[in-house]
Formats: sequence, C-alpha cells, structure tokens
Amino acid sequence: MQLDNNMRSKEDYLKALKDGRKVYYRGKLVEDITSHPILRIAALHAAKLYEYQDRLYEDSKLGKISKFFKVPKSPQDLLDRHKLIYDLTLYCNGIFNISQAIGSDALFALMITARQVDKKYGTDYYKRVEKYFEEVAKQDLTLATAQTDVKGDRSKRPSEQVDPDMYVRIVDVRSDGIVVKGAKAHTTQSAVSDEIIVIPTRAMRENDKDYAIAFAIPTNTQGLKMYTRPIDEIEGNTSAILSKKDYELETLTVFDNVFIPWDRVFLFKEYDHAGTLAMLFATYHRFTALSYRAATINLFLGSSRLISKLNGIENEKHVRDDIVDIILYKEILRSTAIAAAVNPVFLEEIALPNPIFTNVGKLYSNMHFHDVVKDLIDIAGGIIATMPSEEDLKSEEGSTIIKYLRGAVSGEERVKGLKLVKELAASPITGYLLTGMIHAEGSIEASKIELFRSYNYNEAENLIKKILE
Amino acid sequence: MQLDNNMRSKEDYLKALKDGRKVYYRGKLVEDITSHPILRIAALHAAKLYEYQDRLYEDSKLGKISKFFKVPKSPQDLLDRHKLIYDLTLYCNGIFNISQAIGSDALFALMITARQVDKKYGTDYYKRVEKYFEEVAKQDLTLATAQTDVKGDRSKRPSEQVDPDMYVRIVDVRSDGIVVKGAKAHTTQSAVSDEIIVIPTRAMRENDKDYAIAFAIPTNTQGLKMYTRPIDEIEGNTSAILSKKDYELETLTVFDNVFIPWDRVFLFKEYDHAGTLAMLFATYHRFTALSYRAATINLFLGSSRLISKLNGIENEKHVRDDIVDIILYKEILRSTAIAAAVNPVFLEEIALPNPIFTNVGKLYSNMHFHDVVKDLIDIAGGIIATMPSEEDLKSEEGSTIIKYLRGAVSGEERVKGLKLVKELAASPITGYLLTGMIHAEGSIEASKIELFRSYNYNEAENLIKKILE
Amino acid sequence: MQLDNNMRSKEDYLKALKDGRKVYYRGKLVEDITSHPILRIAALHAAKLYEYQDRLYEDSKLGKISKFFKVPKSPQDLLDRHKLIYDLTLYCNGIFNISQAIGSDALFALMITARQVDKKYGTDYYKRVEKYFEEVAKQDLTLATAQTDVKGDRSKRPSEQVDPDMYVRIVDVRSDGIVVKGAKAHTTQSAVSDEIIVIPTRAMRENDKDYAIAFAIPTNTQGLKMYTRPIDEIEGNTSAILSKKDYELETLTVFDNVFIPWDRVFLFKEYDHAGTLAMLFATYHRFTALSYRAATINLFLGSSRLISKLNGIENEKHVRDDIVDIILYKEILRSTAIAAAVNPVFLEEIALPNPIFTNVGKLYSNMHFHDVVKDLIDIAGGIIATMPSEEDLKSEEGSTIIKYLRGAVSGEERVKGLKLVKELAASPITGYLLTGMIHAEGSIEASKIELFRSYNYNEAENLIKKILE
Amino acid sequence: MQLDNNMRSKEDYLKALKDGRKVYYRGKLVEDITSHPILRIAALHAAKLYEYQDRLYEDSKLGKISKFFKVPKSPQDLLDRHKLIYDLTLYCNGIFNISQAIGSDALFALMITARQVDKKYGTDYYKRVEKYFEEVAKQDLTLATAQTDVKGDRSKRPSEQVDPDMYVRIVDVRSDGIVVKGAKAHTTQSAVSDEIIVIPTRAMRENDKDYAIAFAIPTNTQGLKMYTRPIDEIEGNTSAILSKKDYELETLTVFDNVFIPWDRVFLFKEYDHAGTLAMLFATYHRFTALSYRAATINLFLGSSRLISKLNGIENEKHVRDDIVDIILYKEILRSTAIAAAVNPVFLEEIALPNPIFTNVGKLYSNMHFHDVVKDLIDIAGGIIATMPSEEDLKSEEGSTIIKYLRGAVSGEERVKGLKLVKELAASPITGYLLTGMIHAEGSIEASKIELFRSYNYNEAENLIKKILE
Repeated sequence: MQLDNNMRSKEDYLKALKDGRKVYYRGKLVEDITSHPILRIAALHAAKLYEYQDRLYEDSKLGKISKFFKVPKSPQDLLDRHKLIYDLTLYCNGIFNISQAIGSDALFALMITARQVDKKYGTDYYKRVEKYFEEVAKQDLTLATAQTDVKGDRSKRPSEQVDPDMYVRIVDVRSDGIVVKGAKAHTTQSAVSDEIIVIPTRAMRENDKDYAIAFAIPTNTQGLKMYTRPIDEIEGNTSAILSKKDYELETLTVFDNVFIPWDRVFLFKEYDHAGTLAMLFATYHRFTALSYRAATINLFLGSSRLISKLNGIENEKHVRDDIVDIILYKEILRSTAIAAAVNPVFLEEIALPNPIFTNVGKLYSNMHFHDVVKDLIDIAGGIIATMPSEEDLKSEEGSTIIKYLRGAVSGEERVKGLKLVKELAASPITGYLLTGMIHAEGSIEASKIELFRSYNYNEAENLIKKILE
Repeated sequence: MQLDNNMRSKEDYLKALKDGRKVYYRGKLVEDITSHPILRIAALHAAKLYEYQDRLYEDSKLGKISKFFKVPKSPQDLLDRHKLIYDLTLYCNGIFNISQAIGSDALFALMITARQVDKKYGTDYYKRVEKYFEEVAKQDLTLATAQTDVKGDRSKRPSEQVDPDMYVRIVDVRSDGIVVKGAKAHTTQSAVSDEIIVIPTRAMRENDKDYAIAFAIPTNTQGLKMYTRPIDEIEGNTSAILSKKDYELETLTVFDNVFIPWDRVFLFKEYDHAGTLAMLFATYHRFTALSYRAATINLFLGSSRLISKLNGIENEKHVRDDIVDIILYKEILRSTAIAAAVNPVFLEEIALPNPIFTNVGKLYSNMHFHDVVKDLIDIAGGIIATMPSEEDLKSEEGSTIIKYLRGAVSGEERVKGLKLVKELAASPITGYLLTGMIHAEGSIEASKIELFRSYNYNEAENLIKKILE
Repeated sequence: MQLDNNMRSKEDYLKALKDGRKVYYRGKLVEDITSHPILRIAALHAAKLYEYQDRLYEDSKLGKISKFFKVPKSPQDLLDRHKLIYDLTLYCNGIFNISQAIGSDALFALMITARQVDKKYGTDYYKRVEKYFEEVAKQDLTLATAQTDVKGDRSKRPSEQVDPDMYVRIVDVRSDGIVVKGAKAHTTQSAVSDEIIVIPTRAMRENDKDYAIAFAIPTNTQGLKMYTRPIDEIEGNTSAILSKKDYELETLTVFDNVFIPWDRVFLFKEYDHAGTLAMLFATYHRFTALSYRAATINLFLGSSRLISKLNGIENEKHVRDDIVDIILYKEILRSTAIAAAVNPVFLEEIALPNPIFTNVGKLYSNMHFHDVVKDLIDIAGGIIATMPSEEDLKSEEGSTIIKYLRGAVSGEERVKGLKLVKELAASPITGYLLTGMIHAEGSIEASKIELFRSYNYNEAENLIKKILE
Repeated sequence: MQLDNNMRSKEDYLKALKDGRKVYYRGKLVEDITSHPILRIAALHAAKLYEYQDRLYEDSKLGKISKFFKVPKSPQDLLDRHKLIYDLTLYCNGIFNISQAIGSDALFALMITARQVDKKYGTDYYKRVEKYFEEVAKQDLTLATAQTDVKGDRSKRPSEQVDPDMYVRIVDVRSDGIVVKGAKAHTTQSAVSDEIIVIPTRAMRENDKDYAIAFAIPTNTQGLKMYTRPIDEIEGNTSAILSKKDYELETLTVFDNVFIPWDRVFLFKEYDHAGTLAMLFATYHRFTALSYRAATINLFLGSSRLISKLNGIENEKHVRDDIVDIILYKEILRSTAIAAAVNPVFLEEIALPNPIFTNVGKLYSNMHFHDVVKDLIDIAGGIIATMPSEEDLKSEEGSTIIKYLRGAVSGEERVKGLKLVKELAASPITGYLLTGMIHAEGSIEASKIELFRSYNYNEAENLIKKILE
C-alpha cells in the first residue's frame, strides 16, 4: 500500500486537470476532461501511475520522488528503469503509461545537451533545466513531450516550407521570454498532462535557427490548443473491453503565439545542437519504447494462447509457430533493452542506453509488429471480423448466437475471449496499434538511417583487413 | 447504358429484398433492409451489379443472361470470368461484388459433384441442380453461399461435438423434403441476396453422414435467421469515405429447423462426396478471390501513390520499395489467376481453374496482405492514427487544423487523402480486411494442407531419380 | 527419334568447336575444349540441344529450323517457347541449356530495335539482323550473348571511367567495319558457342556514344579471349553427381581490338537506342529465366521430397512447410511466365512477353531463392556439411561409414540421396547458384527500379480519384 | 606475450596430437595430423587458443587455469564467457575456436546433472565429474563433445531402430567399466582434441536405458575412429584466403566397442536424466553459439562494407538496407547473449544462461543467416560466381584479367576483396556455413519446440485474465 501521505495522489492529479486547458474533442471544447465520458478514461489511465505500488525512492537531494525521475547513472539504473516501465505497462493492462516516462526521457536528454551547449557557448541552460527538473520531481507532475513537428512538405527543410509554421518556431523575442508558433503532431497524453516539454524533431542548419528551440510550459498556457484524435476504439466498437479500461490519447498540439519565460527556455537558436538533442531524446525514448512494447505484446501472446485453447487448436503446429513468432518478438525486444541497459554510453556523467542495441530493438519492433497481428488473426479465425455485435449478444437473440459460438468451451466463455481478440486484431485499435508500432518513437526508415550512420564498422572492417594482409 | 428492358433492374432487385427475411442488426430485427441507414449501403453495393455495363451475354439455351452464369468450358471462359470479377470490383470502388459470383462458384461445383454422385449412386441430383441453375439465371437472381459451419471444437469431427448442431445437419426426413438445423458463420451478403446455397465445409466420414448435405433456399425461408456484424467501418469512423459507398456485410446464419423441398436438395448423406464438393467450390471461389483481391489491392496501391505525393516523398527509396512490394502482391495474384485460367482441369466437361495455381495465388495472398498494409502505413506516417476527427475538421477550429496538415500540397488536399488512407490502414476496416485476407475463402493453413496433399511431385521426383540412376 | 539427317547433329556441333578459339582454363590455353576433362562437360551439355526430341518446326520461309528461332508473334508462340525452355531444362537434368535460348532472345530484341532505329535514322540494320538471323537459323548454330560490361566504378557512366575500356567500345572505324575493345563479364557458355552476340548493358547518353554498339562475331574471331571460371562444383566436390552430367560455364570475355565487318554491326553510336535494346533483351531473357528457373527448382523440390523420405520425416509439419514454400516459389515463377506469355506487348509485330509480369516473376525469383536453399537444408540435416568424402565411402572403411548413415532406409540408399543434396545445398554449386539466382538476368535492384519506373499506375490512381470525387 | 612458462604451450598441444589416434581423411588413415597439408590447419587453428593473450585466471583451488574452465556462478561470469568466446573468435579470423568452449559447456552441464542424479539415486557421479574436470583444467586440455547420434530413422526412438547402433549404446558391462558401440555425427574438432566427452542427444524412456550414457575418453582410445569431412573450402577453391588460415573440421565419430573405465562414466542407464543433460548442454552451447556467431558475422559485415566500397556503391540505398540487415542480425545475437547472461537460472549453484533468451537468439540466428548471405551477394555482384581462377590470375593473362576487374579502385585491390567475398558467399564454405548456421547447436525446429514447451505463459495469460475479469 502506498503510504506516503505527502506524495501526490490520484485525486490531486485529477483535480489539477481542471485548469482551463484548451482541449477539443470531436469539434467541441471539453470543459472538464475528468468528467468527459470518453476522455476521462485517458485521465484515469494516466492516474494509475499514482496508484502503482513501489513507485517512489529516496533521492539524496530531493527526498522521496518518483523512480521515473531517477537520473540514470549506471547499468543497474537503466535495468531498473526498463523494469519499471515494463511493470507499469502490465499494471495498466498492457497499455503504456507515459505520464512520467516520456517527460523524464526528455529531461535526461535536455540535461546532457544543456551541459554541452553551456560548455560551448557559456550559456546557463543546465541551471534552468535542473531547476525545472527539481520542481517537476518534487511536485510529482506528469509531463507530455511534443517533438514531431507537422513538417509540411517532407522534402523540404524547416526554413524552406511554403508556410513557415510547419515547424514550431520563434516569432518574437522579448525581454522576459519568447513567443512561439507552430504545431506538433501526435503528442501523447498531452491533454491529461500537467506540463508539456517541447524539443526539436531533427537536426537544423543555420537557416533554420529560429526553429532550434526547446522549452517547457504548463498545459493550460494561453495560446496552447490540443485537438484530440477520435477514440474510435471505444466509440466504434461496442464490444470493447480493454479500451474502456485503458488507452492513450494523442493530440495535434497547436502553439498559437505562446509565450515562454526565459527560465523555461532550454535551447534558443543553438541550431548546431538541435540534432543532438533530438537524437538523445529519441534514444532514451526508444529504450522506453522497447520496454513498454515488450509488455504490450503480452496482450497478443496471452490472447493468442487463450483463443487457441477456446478454439481447441492449441497444439496445432501452425498455432505453435504463430506463438513462437510472438515470443520471438517479445523477447528480442526485451533482449535489446537489457543489452542497451548493460552497455550504456556515459555523457556528462549520465547513462544513455546503448544507441545501437536500442535502435536495433526499435527497428525490429517497427518491422515485425504486423506479423504479430497476423499471428493472432491466424489463430483466432475469421469470426473476429464477422461476429454479431454486442447489442445482438445482449438481445433476446443472444442465447441463439452464443450457442453457435461455442468452441472447445461453452459459447459464453469463448465469446468473452473473442471480444478481446476482436478488439486487438479486428477493430479500430488494430490499425491504431499497427500505425503506432511502425511510426511511434521513430519510423522504420529513421531507425535504419540512424543505425547505418552511427554504427562503428571498425571491428568488422579491421577483421577483414587482418585477413587480407 | 443498360438497355435490356426485360432484364432485372437495380430497382427490381431492391424491391425483392422486402420479403419478410429475418435480418438482425445490433439487437434489432430490421424491417426493411433497403431503408436501413447502414445496411442499405450493402444492398446498394450489391445492386451495382445491375448497373454494371456489358454484364450480359446471349446463351444458346437460356437467352440473355448474366455472364456470371456462363458455365466455364474453356480457358477463355475462365479468363473472361477473371476479368469480369476484376472489373466489377473496380467498378464497385475496389470492394468485391459477390452478388452472383459466389453463387455461380457454388453452382459450378454442384454441377460437377451432382454428375459424379449420379453416376455412382444413380441419383438425379444433376437434373435438380440444372433446373435450379436455369431458374436463377433466367430470373437473374443474387445468391449467397453458406459454407463455413460454426464448427465448435476444432479438434473434433461434426458427429463428435458436444452440441450436435455445430455443423448444419439433417434433423428430419419427410416425404416432401428435409429439415435442417445448425448455423453457418460469416455468410457474405446473405442479408441482401435472393437465395442462399448451402454446401458442406469439409470432408465427412460415415458417422458424419447427417452432415453431408447441400441445398438452396430463398432468403426469406421460415426458420432462417441472419445476424449481421456491426458495420463499424461506418459507425466507428466518422471520416469514412469508401465504406459509405461500398462494403460487404456478413452474417451468422442460423437454420432453426428449416425445411427444404427435395428438388432443392443437392446432396443427401452421400458423405463420400462432401469433401469433393467442398474442395471444388473452394477452388472456384479461390479463383474468384484472386480476381477480386487483385482489384482490391488497387486501393492500397493507388492510395500509397497518392499519399507519397501529398507528403512529398514519392521518390524516396524506401517508398519505392513499399510501392514495388504492393505491385508484386497485386501482380502475383493476377499471374496465378491467369495461369489457373489458362491451364484448367476439365471435370464433367466443365473447366475448373487449375487448383495448384489457384491455391498458390490464394496462399500468397493470405500470407502477405499484412505486408501491404504495413507498406501503406510506412508511407503515410503516424498522422493517420492521430489526426483529429471529422467533427473537428468541420468545426470552427477546422481551418487551424487544416493549416497544420499541409504536406507538399495544401492542407485541404492532403486531408482528403489522409482520410482515405486512415480508413484503409488505421480504422475499423483495417482489421476487418486483415482478417478477411487471411481467412476468407480458406485460411493459410487450409491452403498449405491442400497444396502439399494435392501437388503432383512426379516431375520433380522423376528428375531426381533420373539423375541418381 | 530425330530423323532429320540434314539437320545439324551433336557431332557436327562438337566438331565445330575445334576452331582455334582462345579459351583459357586455370591459367592455360585450352587446345581442344571437347577433349578437356572438365570443360567438355559444358560442351556435351550444350550438345544435348541437338539430341532433344521434337526441337524442330517447319518455317514457311526458312524450312525446318529450331523452335528457338521461331519469332514470337502470338501468346501461343510465347507459351510454346516457355514450355520449350522448361522442358529442355528438365531434359538437361534441371540445368539451363542456353545454346539457342539467349541468342534468340537477343535476336528478337535486335529485330525490334533495328526496325525502330531504321525508321528514325534511315539505317539498314534490320536487313543485317535478318540476314544474320537466317544464317544462324539455317545453320542451326549455338549462340552466346555478351551483355554485362565489367563496369569498373559502378557510380560512374561509361565515358566517365578512369579506364575507358570498362565498357566495350569502338576504338576504330574502318571502311570495312569497326574495331572494338573492352570486356564483358559472365558470358554464359561462350566458350562452347558458335557465335557471340554483343549488346549494350545499359542506357547511354551522347557522351557515351562510342559505347553504343551491338554486333555478332564467330567465337574464334581474332582478338577474342575467354577466361573461364573454375569449375569447382566438379573439381571441388568429389562426390558430385549432377555437375558431372551438366553444368554451364561462364567466361570473362575480352575483346582485344576485335574487328567486326559492317554487316555484323547492328548498332553504331545510336546511343538513344542502347537503353531500349538492353531493356528488350532483358525482358526476353528474363522470360527465359522464369522458364528455366521453374524447371531448375525441381532439383530442390525433388531432392527435398527424397531426403525427407530417406530421413523418415516426410510428414513432419515443418518439412511440409518447407516443401510448400518450394512449391510456391516454383509455381509463382511459372504463373508469371504464363501470364507474361498470355498478355504480350506487340512491338514491330513481334510479341514481347509482358514486361510487368516478367519483371514481377524475375524479382520474386531473385528475392526468394535463398529461402529455397534454406528449406532443403532444413529438411536434409547437418550431415550434408559434415559427411565423410567420396574417397572415404569407397575405401575399406566405407561399409562402416555407410552403416552409420542409414535413415528410414539403408545407408547405401540414403548416401546416394545425401550426395546429391550436399551437391545442391552444401557444395561449391550452392554459392554459385545463390549468386546466379540473385544476379543473373538482372539483379534485385535492377528489377525493382524497372518495375517502379515502368508500372502503369493509372488504374490504381484513377480508382482513388473516383472514390475521392 | 604469454609468459606463464608452466602453462601448456601451442607446441605442447601439437605434440600431444601425435598419439596414434585413428583419423581418416579422403579414404586414408592420417599418420600425423600436424603434418598433414590440409588437416594441420585445423590443428593450428585450435592451437591459437594457446597463443591468445589473457586467457588465464587464478582459480582459488586449481591455481592458474584457462578462463574457459571458470565455472559460471554469476551474471558477470557469463558476460565474461560471452566476451571471451566472441573475442577469441575474432582472434581466429571470425572462425569459432571450440577447443575448450564446447568441452566446458558439457562439463558444466554434467556437474549440474551429476548432482541431481546423485541426489536422486545416491550415485557418486559428481565426484567423478569433478575429478575429471580438475585434471582437464590443470592439464589445460582441449576437448571435443560428441552429442548428436547418427539417429537412423528419425521417426523412431533409439530402441526402435532396425539397427540398434544408431545411437551410442552400452554393449557390455564389466567390473572395471563399460563397453560402448555406435556413432556420433559431426563432432567438431574431435580429430585435433585431447579428449572427447560423450553425452546423450535426447530424452530417453525406460526402453532406451542402454542409450542413456555419458562419458569421456582420450581421443586415441582404442576402437575410436574419426572420419573427417573433405575440406573442400581449401581443396575446392584455389583462391581461398580465410580457410587457409582457419577452419574447423568435423568427423563422423565411430565407437567400435570402446571401453570406458568407471571413473570416466558420468551417466549409466539413468534414462530419466538423459533429457535434462542434453538440454543443459544445449543451453550452454547455444549461448556459446550466440557468442561466436556474433563474431563470425563480422566476416560478412566487414566484407560487405569492403566490397561496397570497391564497387563504388557504398551509399546506394539498397546496399545500406543490406548492411543494416546484417547489423540487425549481429546485434540481435549479441543482445540475446547479453540478456541471457544477465538473467541466468541457478541450478546446483551454477549459473545457466537464461534458456529463453538463449533459445530466442539461437532460433533467430538459425532462421536468418541465409538472409545475411543474400545481403552480401546482393552487394558483391555476380562476378563472385564467374570470375576466373587463381591460376588465371597468376598466369601471363593475369594482368589482362585484373585490368578488367577494376571497380572504384584498381583491379589488384578489388580482386583481393572479391576473392574473400567469393570464399564467403560463392564457394564451398558458403554451403557449409549455411548448413552449420541452420543446424549446428540445434535445428530451427528443435529451438521452436523447446521455446514453445518451456516458455512461461503465466505473465501473458494472467494479464488477459485480469482484463477479462
């Protein structure tokens, strides 16, 4: 039992969401997100962070704070972080709880970059980042991180776009801070976070220096508008089970001339560090991704096992092949996360998960999730696409339908399983997951480019040289 | 323009659907399917058959009838049938129009089997089938075919099930006909068809002889109940474009002591022919599947091309690889269909598409459709999962959102494309299509078993023998 | 039985090879290739053409000639050609007999291009090609075709190379003809062919016009030197069975100031047609490739079946999966060849196999042959890599070894099978085949580029436009 | 420099090989393996162990011994062992040095099993194993391990075979020991090892108890005969570079009534532990496999990089895709090895690499090595299959050939690279490697069965239960 009465509670968190933030859902401004029939689930999902056991530790400087805010200094710290994210994802029914994960990923990246920029330019970013970090940690806040700009024409750089707002940019510099404009795409859980951290999405050149910015703001900051995706996994699937318990929302996050005071500005036109910051965050966050994805995949592994038994085919060879394929996916992800943790790179005394193992795992996870979906569908059978609706099952005709949906077990029992499998493999959430697993935390191509570019070929090339000598 | 005034019109067809049939949707009996806001789309989709140009031909015996009812007697007949199905699918926006396709597939299989059974047992099934065929062809009816039983425990045979109704079976034999009970799963377009043909789903043994039946009935026959899947691709995706024009519905089709007069009974306990009939139908229908799937895939090819241009990445190498992968998928399907048509097997003077080429193409199509989905998602980007809803786009905030969704083109233009790509790759239809492409017309495993079993290894084995001599 | 006493016989062909040609093998000039212990096998393999039944047809103009020289004018002609190549490959134990196949591929391409160039530039190439064709056909000659230049730096065009001889080029123009210099890589069966046809390997620009040449010469032409690859499949595998019966040799073919008389010159600096000629030949030859590869794959299919039985595992599910994978490979190749034949493009009244189906099949064959090798190895077991040598089997110890190599059958019988499987999957021929199946007749990347570039996207793009209207 | 003068030297090792052992090569008994022109390379390869720096450590009980004999007691011990194997493989030019690796794998498995059997049956196997272990460690011996029986009919158990000798079995029990008969397949480096350890290849039932044996013998024990595979990678490829430096040999190892004294017998009819022993050894040895394979793959990675540069295509996108695919292969293997080391299972206080991560990595390595070969071939081009021989290159014609083999560099430089790439991807070693990577240390199917069987599904299944509650 969580006994730290001084720590932030679920209730504290939920209450704080009623702060005038501008969240839009299906064309309407949402007054109170915690009472919105659909969006409140995202808030309650986030709030599970505060219910999770054993989430705190005693920091020598900051006292009792969330383990998410433990700056990694060793392989063990990274292994612990991997396990924390994995376990919390399982706690949240296989759905990633990003509440303090992505924000801490960003903060670690900012700490490293800030020190590097300070060293080069004599700036004081590290102090600002540290102060912000301590505030956030002590107040036990949740944070979203907005990285991916909307980008416009993908063949053009930020400063070359027809509309200059395609990447978030500085539109005014004032004595007390800066004003920014632009929009970030798919910001996860922004609408239910306390704060939003903003960082660049890519390397910048001198021409793009107005786009080389990083900062943090409260979610109710004036000018910030969040347009939430439709939650079709609930509204479009009346037999949904999982999504009614846990899901994550994303927003198109618009910065309509938003003011940022200087102490919340962490990069300001130092364009030569934008790429590093983007890459450092990506590495931390891909490590996070490996950790939650390995947990999420249990949804597919467990439901594959379940439905194979309900169908009476659990020992068929093709079913076993499908199951082994899912195991491979899950355990390769875990392996790369562990290998990344055990072999970190130290930058400014902070442990960065090994970028090669991290990107290898990430790339594998992007490239093969659709095979996992295929595996589950292969085992489940076509009925997940064609079964009558929840309303039918609950109608007078329900018993007839259920009679005919029996498998190796009764119809009642099989239908329960079928509804969950349908949700995972043949409902709105399927395409959402497919897209997320291919693109979230960096696309297939992004991971390939990074791996090819950053790989150290010396060992292999020297071996060949030695042989050819 | 269709000028055959004597032929059945779209209107005739739609009118005939109001015949007291028992269709249930979301827990309610549907009074008139042609005026149901969602289900009528399936009826209108089916009705496009009657609007399609050049769909008739002059039969020497039956006069002007639908090309679907041309019994194939030559490679050219099969090539024509392939093209007919491909073209009609394109006409229906890439969505298969099964109205007379699956029924004629079943009728050709029944003609062959009937002759074989008649020869062996001195029965008169062929006469019954022929009479039924001529009625159907002359009246230009639409037909569903119900093959897949609900099956219960997949590890047990029909007669071994806990509940004997897991496969449709004879429960009474009367002087004027038989009474059947049971249920068939995922019967496509049954709710909007004039007739339903019922055939066995597998080979039977003597113990299973009460399950060895084939017959045909009008869709409004007493005791027949159809439970339609929820059409979440419309109700669960407010930005749907394609599904509002065309989709197919499936039902769980229950036979609650349905009476079949003798002249509509085409197989009656001749259990040793159940497997052949199932296999013959499967071969015709998989050939049909290759034909419509090759057309359907244009949805993915065309939208991949479109979104690559809208995003400004149409010449990126990884985009080209994705596109080529989709081309490969489409053209391998077409190749196998053409090869199957050009090398038919003749049974009872009827041309059966070559089963090897047909199953090879079918297996390939089952195994790799999920790669096509991945290709499209890879090109489209994560925005298809996270973009704001249709209601947002139409709200006051719409212009802001659209501003930020521009690509290499204006936001308006890109959003139009994104909505369609979302529909295909990240909406309820995605999982529905994935499941259909893996399981419809026979699962991956079913095709593998059939290929391994039926392949003629002589050529290859003789080659090895010759070398080893 | 072949009864045409006037036609060229195997003996005529072999005798003609003793013509002073310059063939080098393992550092030595080969005096008489027909009596060379290793190279004679390539000659005898080629000679099987003349032993093959039913290889002639009556041409209305040229009289009785080889079917290989039937200029395709219809789908049926192409289907016949496909079958001819497939059957002759089987006749030659699964090894492609290129003797008149590649030469006729080149001649058909030259006929089309010659007419196109003549139309544009008023030249008389077609007359030259026709005359050459008729000579060759009447004399029933064998022909090699040398296309792939050695290329030097792959990132540079012909005229940009450090050494200007990296592509075959014109070094002198005389009143009676031209003099060429350069080298072509991997010319199949050149050393045992009567004639060699030379065509460009790629599109050319004006700067490259000295490289835009096509011509034909007798193999014993002065200045022509052929350096044969080592035949390690025989010399490096004492248990070889198949390679002692049939193999193909390739040479590095050097043109050391070779003179070509004008009537044998078929392209001369018309650089704008070099690409077309290269592409037309590639299309014909890839169609040929599909045809022989489908036959060759029977080696893998038949030996997979054999070894699965010898090992006693022919019904294991993973063995069946492997077998089905090989079937898929073979039958997709055949399907695309058939589809290409049935849907030709007509150019200058000559039927060109459909380039899309041809390239689709070719790409599939390049991308997946290594899976076929894996399948066979998976079934065979590790013993194919570690079994004792032929010399051991024939020694006093042979009976002991054979005792321990029994499977579901006696050791004698299994060893016979194991030797062949080793030859296919774990001997010098394995890597040779892998490389050939990936690169011969165009690499993976070449096929992808061609498909992406030449595909007609209209159908798919128009479908999307129609839906979005 | 190795300075421990008391430790065994390379020379000591080589001298000890002249001990009358019965090794046959190409039908002849090899008198002195260290002076055999081909086989001595395998001995010199093994001897590199003794030249390797930093291979010793101070054991508290046994004094200075090889690190291979450090019984793993912690994650760090396993990480060290992984690194030792990886580094020694690199030291041996990418070829695994099994000299003390496989033997220690077997000894650790025997220690665990011996304790388990002793506990159950009151035997004294552990004392015997420990004594043997200490002798071996102090004398710094090399050991082969013979596990895989020749198996005969794979569908039958040991006691069901037509010939009872298809698995090594007890044929006599004497007061001083036992007599065994049978044969083991593909025993690596047996012919150049000091000792051979023999363990069961599978689980046994009571009927098979005469086959449930484990023991160790000196390689020159009477009745032991070793039939070596032909080393075609040298004798069948005159341009070989790598194989002339390093390769491993395998033998068919025949036990012709071999006597084993009791103190060398480690399992004797305790059939219920045969499976455990086989599995424990397999786990240790698969961990070893992951470690050496990750190092071996540098041959493919390094030569891919090299040849891409020599060809002038190192920045082509398809080349980068191939390179990234090889990186993925290598780093997934390393990740799983690291994860297995960091999460061991403790049995009898000995650390066993985590079996799940080990089998996942092993399965991945089996399933995808053929893709790595394809990647290298794709980059290298067809020339590796068709280039003239070493004898040609050294002949008078050599300079002409070399002129035409230039790439982005001179012909001399490119040819050097091409020879190595040919050796790896298109020579006898290619098929040998393919077979080894698919079958060595357990086949694809073996790994799948083990994973499916041993995986703990609780976590995933409980997650689903929780959601469905």
